[in-house]
Amino acid sequence: MRLCRFNSDRLGLIEDDSVADVSEALGELSAHRWGAFAGDPLILALPRVMDAATRLRASAPRVPLASVELKSPITQPGKIMAAPANYSLHVKETIDPGIDHGVHSKALEGVERPPEKYGLFLKALSALVGAGQGVDLVFPDRRTDHEIELAVIIGVGGHSISASKAMEHVAGYSIGLDMTVRGAEDRSFRKSPDSYCVLGPAIVTRDEIDDPMALELTLSVNGVLKQTSSTSVMTVGIAELIALASRMYTLQPGDVLLTGTPQGVGAVRPGDVMQCSCSGIGEMQVPVRLHGNHASARDPNKAD
Amino acid sequence: MRLCRFNSDRLGLIEDDSVADVSEALGELSAHRWGAFAGDPLILALPRVMDAATRLRASAPRVPLASVELKSPITQPGKIMAAPANYSLHVKETIDPGIDHGVHSKALEGVERPPEKYGLFLKALSALVGAGQGVDLVFPDRRTDHEIELAVIIGVGGHSISASKAMEHVAGYSIGLDMTVRGAEDRSFRKSPDSYCVLGPAIVTRDEIDDPMALELTLSVNGVLKQTSSTSVMTVGIAELIALASRMYTLQPGDVLLTGTPQGVGAVRPGDVMQCSCSGIGEMQVPVRLHGNHASARDPNKAD
Repeated sequence: MRLCRFNSDRLGLIEDDSVADVSEALGELSAHRWGAFAGDPLILALPRVMDAATRLRASAPRVPLASVELKSPITQPGKIMAAPANYSLHVKETIDPGIDHGVHSKALEGVERPPEKYGLFLKALSALVGAGQGVDLVFPDRRTDHEIELAVIIGVGGHSISASKAMEHVAGYSIGLDMTVRGAEDRSFRKSPDSYCVLGPAIVTRDEIDDPMALELTLSVNGVLKQTSSTSVMTVGIAELIALASRMYTLQPGDVLLTGTPQGVGAVRPGDVMQCSCSGIGEMQVPVRLHGNHASARDPNKAD
Repeated sequence: MRLCRFNSDRLGLIEDDSVADVSEALGELSAHRWGAFAGDPLILALPRVMDAATRLRASAPRVPLASVELKSPITQPGKIMAAPANYSLHVKETIDPGIDHGVHSKALEGVERPPEKYGLFLKALSALVGAGQGVDLVFPDRRTDHEIELAVIIGVGGHSISASKAMEHVAGYSIGLDMTVRGAEDRSFRKSPDSYCVLGPAIVTRDEIDDPMALELTLSVNGVLKQTSSTSVMTVGIAELIALASRMYTLQPGDVLLTGTPQGVGAVRPGDVMQCSCSGIGEMQVPVRLHGNHASARDPNKAD
């Protein structure tokens, strides 16, 4: 099942080139008012939502996929986690001074499995958008790179999850874009501007993917191929990343795990369109624009 | 007004040594089911909640403050941000090899205003607890330090907020504990285990604090004073931190900003009790325990 969120918070099933509107299934979600955070509302109710969507599917109104605005299918992840330097050919390209900033090559020299040494980093929830919303560059005078990744959506939470049982904790998969401002700042800062975490086009539930460690990722900018690789060559695999994360903190339903980007990262500019695809998951087109506040973004005394 | 969350998601007003139960004011909160995240539900409704609490106060049932379990008054912050190395005497002590881990002194040498170079880092939402819940050490064989900080709660969101208007975006203040595992991992990882962000004892609304840049912070462990300083000596002030953060990403109601820790950080051990105080805000006692899953936390094949 390929669940998407579109237009004004509609719930859709992507089937080939159309979207079946199964928003009635959102009645399965629990409303939350106050108290401890339990997880993303869609993922907390996922089994019931899938049952309802299956019932609704045949009679659901359909619209062309190309006609909808895709938003992030996850709306309230407790955490957006990401694995640093998890493809060795990407590590090799970080010696580029435009990427390195005196940080990466020093830290990564001789480190065979970077996530095991450095752990994961976080991206802000306010960075999360869907493909249709696009990426807004916040600092047009600074290099901002595309980084396509396989995104894993946690379904069942837990702490100290073993690698052997980790895949049972997965709800599904999406394509993730870990947009990145290059510079000396903390990763969790310069990777967290609004719209710098694109998730889409859908959550493809776990049952649809035979082997998430054998998916082909590609990213083109304006039709020119930039990144292409297979998840089979990621350094620390999905199950081990889940185990590693859950030894540090509790994973919750709807947490997003970005599994690292392969080689070919590069800068984008306003007006660019990124074409992203992942075998088994689908495709998405992501436009790049200028952030509305960019002109005032550097002088705090002239802002507001 | 000193708003706290206690026991089973009750809303309280702390007045001297008692808590007035004004949970009826929670009726002002909007329930949320799906769609874009707007902010913490209490802070989104704060003006109405404060009005209702004022009406309810006189006839509210009262319990002794010492008898309640304090939880985090913020339950769903979009972001927990923290300023690195924002007190110069704390920067000086990071040459301690137990803190440095070959990272800090190299990065901080000659950097007068670290948050302006390195930005802020994030802590995970799953790390958030109140004083009554205590801190559970996840890696008993690794050094874990107390770091007391002034926590600023964002009330009104915004992007590119000027320093001159920043304080209008503040809802209130709490004491924050930025508990930290020492090591080489990314800050947003080793500062994010469950319970490693303690917030309390209450949100003290902005109107109660004349000058948040002149508050005395103290932290003792088992009655022995460890950290004492004034917010007046933080390097990058609250208004500038808000401006800096909001140039990178949108701040949302309920976002938490930890403003940095002064000198005197040190390790805690199971059985310790941390006594935290901040003038104008209050006091809280935070017990330290061992995480329930600690024994299985290092071997992924033996966990679950």
